[in-house]
Amino acid sequence: MTTAQLYSQIIRKKSFLCIGLDVDLDKLPKHLLSSEDPIFEFNKAIIDATHDLCVSYKPNTAFYEAYGIKGWQSLARTIAYINDKYPEIFTIADAKRGDIGNTSTMYAKAFFEDLQFDSVTVAPYMGRDSVEPFLAFEDKHTIMLALTSNEGAFDFQTMEVAGSPLYQTVLETSKTWKNSENLMYVVGATKAEYFREIRSIVPDAFLLVPGVGAQGGSLEDVCSHGMNSKVGLLINSSRGIIYASNGTDFAEAARSEALKLQKAMNVILDQN
Amino acid sequence: MTTAQLYSQIIRKKSFLCIGLDVDLDKLPKHLLSSEDPIFEFNKAIIDATHDLCVSYKPNTAFYEAYGIKGWQSLARTIAYINDKYPEIFTIADAKRGDIGNTSTMYAKAFFEDLQFDSVTVAPYMGRDSVEPFLAFEDKHTIMLALTSNEGAFDFQTMEVAGSPLYQTVLETSKTWKNSENLMYVVGATKAEYFREIRSIVPDAFLLVPGVGAQGGSLEDVCSHGMNSKVGLLINSSRGIIYASNGTDFAEAARSEALKLQKAMNVILDQN
Repeated sequence: MTTAQLYSQIIRKKSFLCIGLDVDLDKLPKHLLSSEDPIFEFNKAIIDATHDLCVSYKPNTAFYEAYGIKGWQSLARTIAYINDKYPEIFTIADAKRGDIGNTSTMYAKAFFEDLQFDSVTVAPYMGRDSVEPFLAFEDKHTIMLALTSNEGAFDFQTMEVAGSPLYQTVLETSKTWKNSENLMYVVGATKAEYFREIRSIVPDAFLLVPGVGAQGGSLEDVCSHGMNSKVGLLINSSRGIIYASNGTDFAEAARSEALKLQKAMNVILDQN
Repeated sequence: MTTAQLYSQIIRKKSFLCIGLDVDLDKLPKHLLSSEDPIFEFNKAIIDATHDLCVSYKPNTAFYEAYGIKGWQSLARTIAYINDKYPEIFTIADAKRGDIGNTSTMYAKAFFEDLQFDSVTVAPYMGRDSVEPFLAFEDKHTIMLALTSNEGAFDFQTMEVAGSPLYQTVLETSKTWKNSENLMYVVGATKAEYFREIRSIVPDAFLLVPGVGAQGGSLEDVCSHGMNSKVGLLINSSRGIIYASNGTDFAEAARSEALKLQKAMNVILDQN
């Protein structure tokens, strides 16, 4: 998928919502647990109930890997279901991968070719040759960690290197990499005051923004500092939507939470 | 496994060799490709041929994920085979994971509980709360990237932050984390001149050292600067051993390459 297609989906749906599929068996509605693949059944119901309100789904690979082969099967079924039934959706494998070149190529094959995700999240610590193998895939997107939403973001990401915080150096440096137009960045909503600076470095890139809702970030603050002329934001919410209810009404409850965010986004889009 | 058990295995085998199982179907001996699970058959033969010469195996998860569910099955079979047949071996999931706390807990469950690895590699960019969930597992080890063996190591890892290179700050900071005694570190063999400084920061920790062989690092240089009184090194070799031949003699050829490294290690251990 191209970013132009993503943008036109945003305009059509009046939404830049990404729903995180961090599916924990312990939190699933009890009535699903007897099915053959509870995680997939849960995801399918959530997706069917929310696909017109969001532009992206983001399965978090950890939550699938934790269940071994069965978990990987649930992940494969989920992405195949989205690609088949809702091909307009921008899919993100939230995997935080990154390794030396030939290894990163194998991760890229795993997520772009085998599972057919549109994008994957990666970590920057190993530098250029750990990220460029992902960038080599046409119409695929590599979403690199810049400034994350957790407390540990202040351990290294905000330290001064060569006169700037590390995350800014990471952003600047990544612009020099081959096929850097395929980069997007993770920037936590809990750090809304940093968005202006980030936008001055990467004015055109899409930013994937976790931390709205459960982690306390404000949608309005993020948008006022982080939006660009092509929106340029994907706001992620996971637990606040998918665990809105753990009863038989879980999908309707998820839709209702997603609708609140979509309506707020509609207002913001109309103002801009 | 405890580090004392790892050390006693090193003394018994006169080896601190780790064999990387980065298994690429395109590089496998042709006669294996008709078997039901070529990757597992390859690993099994390599393991049976080399287990007395090494103390550790390190499957690189990317090479399994690239083949989807079948690949994850090969990984699960490989680790189960090692744990069942050679329980003295220290197993490393080379996965380079790391995410916000509840997600890191799921990754830790995937590798420590579901697959039952002794250790997993993690990336430091997201800081304390992305690594501590791994450290909470007793007798399991978390091997954090410090200074990697690739060119991109010079993009961020060696930049000055607060008067020291970033990788040294990462090492220093990690010592303050809860259960930091469960930390080991990745330090590339291609950077042998850095080992003295690293040893002054983490004198007691095991260092996992990739980059000997295919990537050009020297075993002797690494040992002269990096060894501590309990050895404290796991030297990894992947391609140089497992792809020594792609004929029907691949396992014998792998043994012969592993034996060269083990003999060199024996000499070094006898000198120390």
